[in-house]
Amino acid sequence: MEYSEKSIALHLESRGKIEIKSKVSIKNRHDLSLAYTPGVAAVCTAIGNDKKKSFTLTNRANQVAVVSDGTAILGLGDLGPEAAMPVMEGKAIIFKEFADIDAIPLCINSVEIDDIVKFCKLIEPSFAGINLEDISAPRCFEILEQLEKELSIPVFHDDQDGTAIVTLAAIINACRLTGRHLKDLNIVINGAGAAGIAIARLLIHAEVKDVVLVDTQGAIYDGRPGMNPIKQDIAEVSNRSMLQGDLQTVLTGADVFVGVSRGNIVTAAMIEGMNNSPFIFAMANPTPEIMPELAYKAGAVVVGTGRSDLPNQVNNALVFPGLFRGLLSTGTRKVTPEIKMAVANAIAHSITPTHDSLMPTAFNEDVVQNIVTVIAEIASASIPQESDLVCSQS
Amino acid sequence: MEYSEKSIALHLESRGKIEIKSKVSIKNRHDLSLAYTPGVAAVCTAIGNDKKKSFTLTNRANQVAVVSDGTAILGLGDLGPEAAMPVMEGKAIIFKEFADIDAIPLCINSVEIDDIVKFCKLIEPSFAGINLEDISAPRCFEILEQLEKELSIPVFHDDQDGTAIVTLAAIINACRLTGRHLKDLNIVINGAGAAGIAIARLLIHAEVKDVVLVDTQGAIYDGRPGMNPIKQDIAEVSNRSMLQGDLQTVLTGADVFVGVSRGNIVTAAMIEGMNNSPFIFAMANPTPEIMPELAYKAGAVVVGTGRSDLPNQVNNALVFPGLFRGLLSTGTRKVTPEIKMAVANAIAHSITPTHDSLMPTAFNEDVVQNIVTVIAEIASASIPQESDLVCSQS
Repeated sequence: MEYSEKSIALHLESRGKIEIKSKVSIKNRHDLSLAYTPGVAAVCTAIGNDKKKSFTLTNRANQVAVVSDGTAILGLGDLGPEAAMPVMEGKAIIFKEFADIDAIPLCINSVEIDDIVKFCKLIEPSFAGINLEDISAPRCFEILEQLEKELSIPVFHDDQDGTAIVTLAAIINACRLTGRHLKDLNIVINGAGAAGIAIARLLIHAEVKDVVLVDTQGAIYDGRPGMNPIKQDIAEVSNRSMLQGDLQTVLTGADVFVGVSRGNIVTAAMIEGMNNSPFIFAMANPTPEIMPELAYKAGAVVVGTGRSDLPNQVNNALVFPGLFRGLLSTGTRKVTPEIKMAVANAIAHSITPTHDSLMPTAFNEDVVQNIVTVIAEIASASIPQESDLVCSQS
Repeated sequence: MEYSEKSIALHLESRGKIEIKSKVSIKNRHDLSLAYTPGVAAVCTAIGNDKKKSFTLTNRANQVAVVSDGTAILGLGDLGPEAAMPVMEGKAIIFKEFADIDAIPLCINSVEIDDIVKFCKLIEPSFAGINLEDISAPRCFEILEQLEKELSIPVFHDDQDGTAIVTLAAIINACRLTGRHLKDLNIVINGAGAAGIAIARLLIHAEVKDVVLVDTQGAIYDGRPGMNPIKQDIAEVSNRSMLQGDLQTVLTGADVFVGVSRGNIVTAAMIEGMNNSPFIFAMANPTPEIMPELAYKAGAVVVGTGRSDLPNQVNNALVFPGLFRGLLSTGTRKVTPEIKMAVANAIAHSITPTHDSLMPTAFNEDVVQNIVTVIAEIASASIPQESDLVCSQS
């Protein structure tokens, strides 16, 4: 595929995608005496006396760590931390371009939950937020949960909630386009990893009619043997009809298909067996579960994929720049379901959807602005948080 | 002091000193498809198949972590990791300005040796080198030793070897200026922390006549009760006359004073008791052990300090940019005594010293170039290292 060769050539030529830039001039000894010793001693002392000042006297307030162990890189699987770096550098330049956030890629050499949690706790003093990335399920759930409890800065796992938010935004716009309502939708999600579980949780919170998750063993239902605790938990609040069987079976009569696992697994016949005019989000990367042309022929009314070279891309890059800009500027520590819903709506309503333009592009500047606005509204409506570390701008 | 207020104002205005910059353009969907998905998948796969390619397809080859726990910030002591950040950002902009190296400040939330070692091992896949900074003695010795054994990328503790190298460079130039020789010098070092111990080790390697370290208990000598293992080790190879007593006592008849501890502790009388025309390096920050004017009056022939606003600054910023540039460009993993000696000589010989201009300034572009040259010479003369990870440019 031509992207591959061109992308490797680009990376080889530029030797990666990020560099450090100084925000101050150091052209002579006087400059150095203020940016470094002896002047810097007073800055250190000021922060030593009041740690909150690290948010105003250093770049911390604008700095996010992008942390990965390289176990779930795109759809490629576990290639190790070195191989995760190109994605993390890509996120860093998207953070900078779209939200002027300084993101530092940190790909680490352990897949142990305790190590990853410990690592994030160790780097907390240097950052205003942490973006977890490409960490495989089910470890990623426990890591996020522990960090949300233990850190005083916001933590966000993009593969979980970034994907969930942008998927909800896509479904909202599909509803707007077709005059349908979330509460009427039976939604089948193929894949019960980080993305699938998080999408299911958010759609349930958004009060869709029902959600059925499908993994390699078929439909997930309450009490199915051999499930991990994460799957058992979601089973208790999803699939209320207790559907069993494979993807084809549970798709029968469903209104929406969401694919976040393997490509090429949905056939025209499966779509024909769904309810009339279904929404198809075939987001496996790089090969979708079914190609849009085929899905439309089989009766789909809206088709989206994860690919930038096809119409209706459903892409996390719509979420994380604005989300973190909003979190950092308001000092919000926890990405609540309320925030996720509001961000999904903000993304969806950044455009008036059409069949070929269901979602805004990442280059639509309204997206970040709209996300920041809704997060600010939620922050101003909520009681002040226990720690005001992050929001201090004094 | 005016530096303090101006420096705080500068930091407040710029909100710290570093930011992330993209090395590639992402102005449209095509750019994104190469820098990010789908194109980036091929780059990840290439590195997954051959981890060495992280040195050519990401910014890793140019990327150094500056790691601190904030326990020994400048001369200020333990102010915590948040308070260390202004120094680390300062180092980052010096790395970039003088050697085009991308240094990432990582100030971490633990003072445990095991945690700091573990942390550096975790981040290894993201970096080409690690600069330890402002970590207090004696922990810093064990941390460096463990990391030199366990990492495949170079590790350098600037407070140890950066200070040692630049001090040796200063003594070399004092010798050149006065026609004296290292082998004739009895040198007294006040302070037996990271810097003092490392300076003593390097001076002994450089075959000066003798070195006597002084800590708060007085001269360090073999068998002195109550010393930690690091001090006992250095006692066995220093102070061959077994001098005992306080700083004033051991300074009597000495040729060189090196101060790397507290300010205002050397008097004119103490200098008058030294051998004729001594060298005085009063490098405590921000207040020197004795002010230069007073030292000259008492008979000193060369006086240097750590301050940028006084003549003859003896500053680590002369060392670390060029040293890391040399390590990264040659794939050198260990900073051997041979390298330290060569770098000290390279710095010293970047200028012809005078009494008011003993050392090159950080803005002298020959310094980095000369350091890189000597490291390249040493690398090309040595047998290839076990791991060629770092030097791979294929």
